[in-house]
Amino acid sequence: MIIDYRPEPTELAYTFGGVAPVLSLRPGQLLRVRTEDCFGGRVRSVEDLPSQVCEFPYLNPVSGPFYVETAEPGDTLAVHFAAIEPARDWAVSTTFPHFGALTTTHTTAMLHEPLEELVWRYEVDRERRTVRYRALRSEFTVDLPLEPMHGTVGVAPAAFEARMTITPDAHGGNMDTPELRAGVTAYFGVNVPGALLALGDGHCRQGHGEVCGTAVEAAMDTVIAVEVIKGVSTPWPRIEDDRSIMSTGSARPLEDAYRISQHDLVGWVGELTGLHPMDAYQLVSQAGQAPVGNVCDSNYTMVAKLAKQHLGEVSPYGGAHRRLRAVAAA
Amino acid sequence: MIIDYRPEPTELAYTFGGVAPVLSLRPGQLLRVRTEDCFGGRVRSVEDLPSQVCEFPYLNPVSGPFYVETAEPGDTLAVHFAAIEPARDWAVSTTFPHFGALTTTHTTAMLHEPLEELVWRYEVDRERRTVRYRALRSEFTVDLPLEPMHGTVGVAPAAFEARMTITPDAHGGNMDTPELRAGVTAYFGVNVPGALLALGDGHCRQGHGEVCGTAVEAAMDTVIAVEVIKGVSTPWPRIEDDRSIMSTGSARPLEDAYRISQHDLVGWVGELTGLHPMDAYQLVSQAGQAPVGNVCDSNYTMVAKLAKQHLGEVSPYGGAHRRLRAVAAA
Amino acid sequence: MIIDYRPEPTELAYTFGGVAPVLSLRPGQLLRVRTEDCFGGRVRSVEDLPSQVCEFPYLNPVSGPFYVETAEPGDTLAVHFAAIEPARDWAVSTTFPHFGALTTTHTTAMLHEPLEELVWRYEVDRERRTVRYRALRSEFTVDLPLEPMHGTVGVAPAAFEARMTITPDAHGGNMDTPELRAGVTAYFGVNVPGALLALGDGHCRQGHGEVCGTAVEAAMDTVIAVEVIKGVSTPWPRIEDDRSIMSTGSARPLEDAYRISQHDLVGWVGELTGLHPMDAYQLVSQAGQAPVGNVCDSNYTMVAKLAKQHLGEVSPYGGAHRRLRAVAAA
Amino acid sequence: MIIDYRPEPTELAYTFGGVAPVLSLRPGQLLRVRTEDCFGGRVRSVEDLPSQVCEFPYLNPVSGPFYVETAEPGDTLAVHFAAIEPARDWAVSTTFPHFGALTTTHTTAMLHEPLEELVWRYEVDRERRTVRYRALRSEFTVDLPLEPMHGTVGVAPAAFEARMTITPDAHGGNMDTPELRAGVTAYFGVNVPGALLALGDGHCRQGHGEVCGTAVEAAMDTVIAVEVIKGVSTPWPRIEDDRSIMSTGSARPLEDAYRISQHDLVGWVGELTGLHPMDAYQLVSQAGQAPVGNVCDSNYTMVAKLAKQHLGEVSPYGGAHRRLRAVAAA
Repeated sequence: MIIDYRPEPTELAYTFGGVAPVLSLRPGQLLRVRTEDCFGGRVRSVEDLPSQVCEFPYLNPVSGPFYVETAEPGDTLAVHFAAIEPARDWAVSTTFPHFGALTTTHTTAMLHEPLEELVWRYEVDRERRTVRYRALRSEFTVDLPLEPMHGTVGVAPAAFEARMTITPDAHGGNMDTPELRAGVTAYFGVNVPGALLALGDGHCRQGHGEVCGTAVEAAMDTVIAVEVIKGVSTPWPRIEDDRSIMSTGSARPLEDAYRISQHDLVGWVGELTGLHPMDAYQLVSQAGQAPVGNVCDSNYTMVAKLAKQHLGEVSPYGGAHRRLRAVAAA
Repeated sequence: MIIDYRPEPTELAYTFGGVAPVLSLRPGQLLRVRTEDCFGGRVRSVEDLPSQVCEFPYLNPVSGPFYVETAEPGDTLAVHFAAIEPARDWAVSTTFPHFGALTTTHTTAMLHEPLEELVWRYEVDRERRTVRYRALRSEFTVDLPLEPMHGTVGVAPAAFEARMTITPDAHGGNMDTPELRAGVTAYFGVNVPGALLALGDGHCRQGHGEVCGTAVEAAMDTVIAVEVIKGVSTPWPRIEDDRSIMSTGSARPLEDAYRISQHDLVGWVGELTGLHPMDAYQLVSQAGQAPVGNVCDSNYTMVAKLAKQHLGEVSPYGGAHRRLRAVAAA
Repeated sequence: MIIDYRPEPTELAYTFGGVAPVLSLRPGQLLRVRTEDCFGGRVRSVEDLPSQVCEFPYLNPVSGPFYVETAEPGDTLAVHFAAIEPARDWAVSTTFPHFGALTTTHTTAMLHEPLEELVWRYEVDRERRTVRYRALRSEFTVDLPLEPMHGTVGVAPAAFEARMTITPDAHGGNMDTPELRAGVTAYFGVNVPGALLALGDGHCRQGHGEVCGTAVEAAMDTVIAVEVIKGVSTPWPRIEDDRSIMSTGSARPLEDAYRISQHDLVGWVGELTGLHPMDAYQLVSQAGQAPVGNVCDSNYTMVAKLAKQHLGEVSPYGGAHRRLRAVAAA
Repeated sequence: MIIDYRPEPTELAYTFGGVAPVLSLRPGQLLRVRTEDCFGGRVRSVEDLPSQVCEFPYLNPVSGPFYVETAEPGDTLAVHFAAIEPARDWAVSTTFPHFGALTTTHTTAMLHEPLEELVWRYEVDRERRTVRYRALRSEFTVDLPLEPMHGTVGVAPAAFEARMTITPDAHGGNMDTPELRAGVTAYFGVNVPGALLALGDGHCRQGHGEVCGTAVEAAMDTVIAVEVIKGVSTPWPRIEDDRSIMSTGSARPLEDAYRISQHDLVGWVGELTGLHPMDAYQLVSQAGQAPVGNVCDSNYTMVAKLAKQHLGEVSPYGGAHRRLRAVAAA
């Protein structure tokens, strides 16, 4: 049996933490959830400038939070993404005043005028698995692969905090990494009873770093299943797919996001293999990858990734990914 | 008439935002408030290691929040510090595992063991206005000037956020700047009805940057008076004293904290003097100072400072500082 | 006809700039060049600690510089890598005191003792195309793919500078990106007559960011061919392979390396396709990749990469890569 | 007896390292040296836009290098500034395209157009000790104190490098700190025989961080005296005046410049007082200052400063400052 959850606009949340749960989830249960795009669905054409049709702080809404039964502080919440599919046949991307990697921002404050605010509308072809880019100032078009993902997934933060959904940190949030695609299991440390999982900000695809500040933004129909790993803590969000394990780090400057993710991966590899920390450091140094998440949000995100085949026989989190994969297949 | 507020331990707050007010304040009224030190008063001798006697997240408590009558989102709250006086004849400073500028931390994650955790106890001589430093590993002692200040002052953040008191950002918080001393008026943009002002983290003195992570930490008896400047917004906390105006910025990396503060000061100088932005940029470039706040917290803080004598006749915030000075003198 | 160059130890160079050329190269000519590893070949076993067997500043030697005929300031030098093959059946990696991403360094200065200095010796199997990792503190071994590359390639810098080979910057240098493999063409802006090309620091493979500070370091036998593109300047090193174009950026903090590389790619895409800068920004944002080079050297390096198939018919640098590919095949 | 040196334009240098000495200096001897301003004297009015009248890389010229007799690698060169006086009755400041802290730059690369390029001309009143600021777009003028200093002082770098004079690093260079004023002694580690001291970039005054990218730039008549401290190395430039000792650090991001300077000061205090490193860390944390140098050059510069009165009886570098003070007074 699969639960369906499709929030009313008034049910959307704008923070992780500080929000009451909308639903209770039992480990092992499948949930189909609709998520709105980062503009709350208000940017639909090239005329809909986000600074005019959206209102701060009602940006980047998430569906949830979901109260996960049995989850307690100190546990780990495993969230498997069985499916992530665009809910509409269009998506949008924009520049937004003072947001993005190649522009002055709220914190990288400069004396320049903002870059021009523009909207690109993409046609989403769910059959052919493409999105169509159309230039605004010339005739150029190109079809890019449809590679759906969630930019924002996380749980309530520790220390009584409530954080804007736009910020990624140790609780997850707006990590904006293409690694968060269908087929993966994400792991979050639980900070409050029920974990309070929420997700949103679907992307039909995204370049590394989301350099202009937004991806190909879309509402999504997403299917997840969760599991609680009791008594195991997870300091920063991690991801597992069939072939790799991944640690994330979100911070500024970008080298700190890199450091956090690599440091976490070194520790994780040591735990899984029994390697001495310096040996794990060496192995990650030669075999590890570092896919860039975002370089535009209030914290930047890096991922540290290692193929499981280099680790011998390992079973992260006691096989949670394999189990959840089976739940999803059923 | 002066109101006295001395919180019970259970009344202390650990976030800005997400906490109900403890008291209502009328503009123009004087409030005497006791604040605990950043360890909640639990570190009293060199044997009291903070990682043993304190419990996360019960660190850096603030007194408040205070609901300021008439304050609405979009207004500015002016907070005048009439007095800041140590409440005890001792104070402490410590190293704390993975905290400080010359150590690996939670986000500048490395493979080193933490530095040694140590406590220094200072004798506070309120008559002679000194604190006495005593080396732990040799006989060296020296008296340093007593220069009391608050590390943490702020209001509830925007966008439904609740932030740990240890983090400085646009709402104020743990800016840890020695400029926040008796005689100054601090200005904060109001984000929620009543502003929800809170303060704590008194320092008997502090070096620039708080390089080891803590100052000469002390409980304080502090007297403040507030005023609401209606319809005037303040994007980042500002400070005014008899001689200077100051803008603050809190971010990482440190150059962004510098950029925010200088950018805000350039804009402020333009408003006060009618100077073109490029002329204000030039004047601040040659006459401005940049006292370092902290280089150890989850955001770093810089202050941009300019002597009022270089600006001709100016009256920031319509003379709020002068008025509050008068209230305090009365 | 192919020229062979195998330097004597005394012929190796330790800076880009400030060194007389060892050889003159004609465009279109093939050169086979031996390069030493970054330790000058002195670290051969787990007993050879680099801080003992190597002597600063005699680290990271390069072969060259080569004077390229007809190259003048303002031109671009295209360097095609026809082959990069390990010269020996072993390679080494090490930790080095105060070097690497997860340790305090010369500039990220802290009070920690250095991490333990260790050497890992890899067996290189040129037939099976693998290198064998062996843990030092346990029995774990694993074979990793042999993927040879050069960490260090560049030309003499502008402005009369001479830079240590360990530093990457606008002239190239120690970029440490796995994208610099056989089959690619690298482009460098020419700053001095003859360009003064040099290369070294071969890696049998490298993780993203070279997190511990060194890769699987090896002497290499490398075949290159060069071409001069007259009157075309190249502000930062670029790379082209059969499928992609790439821009590099080297700076600190890491987001600046990202910004430089993405900014250069946006401009390059605009030139190749006629796209308006904002349209190019959008296309790169959705279709671009950002492989991490190094996060351990005196500047960090990022690469911005885009598949040529997304650009329609383009011919970067007038088809230099195709022409040099043909020279190499001959 | 005092030596006079006034370079011809063709004698000016644009790098530290890679340049032959213009003069030999004996320790204890006084040298009066004329330095040009950072524009080579070519910007004389508000019409002289630097990007038009100056030619890269002929910017920020230094006088020298001077060969200091007896100085050998591993020694420290002490340079006392007996006098720094403006050579003309005018000075200039400018914005320069893509240079400064509140603008996109070569490395903080963005898609904005450059800020407007403007020149401000200051009248220098050497009697009244003021410089007069005049706004370009309004009638505002103000007299600011004349506080002459050198932005650029250093020696030849290590490792066969030659560095543009615009870059500060371990060899000194363009540190742009107001602490480098008359009456101080600066200490530099010697990397090559004769040290090869050079200086330039006089400022009539400078705000903290040189936020717009240039100070009140002026040619200077400067008197120095040098001493060689044999067998004592100095890793980063240090400064001493009658009241304080100071360490400098130059790096990016700005927190690394802070770390270097504070780390060096902690070590120096430990050496001078016998304090354990953790005790020195604590003392610097409470009593230290952190004057900002520049936040606009290719590396940023921070200074860590401590009053000697807090250290008991100390004699840095065996009393070099006192001795050179006496030489200057004679």
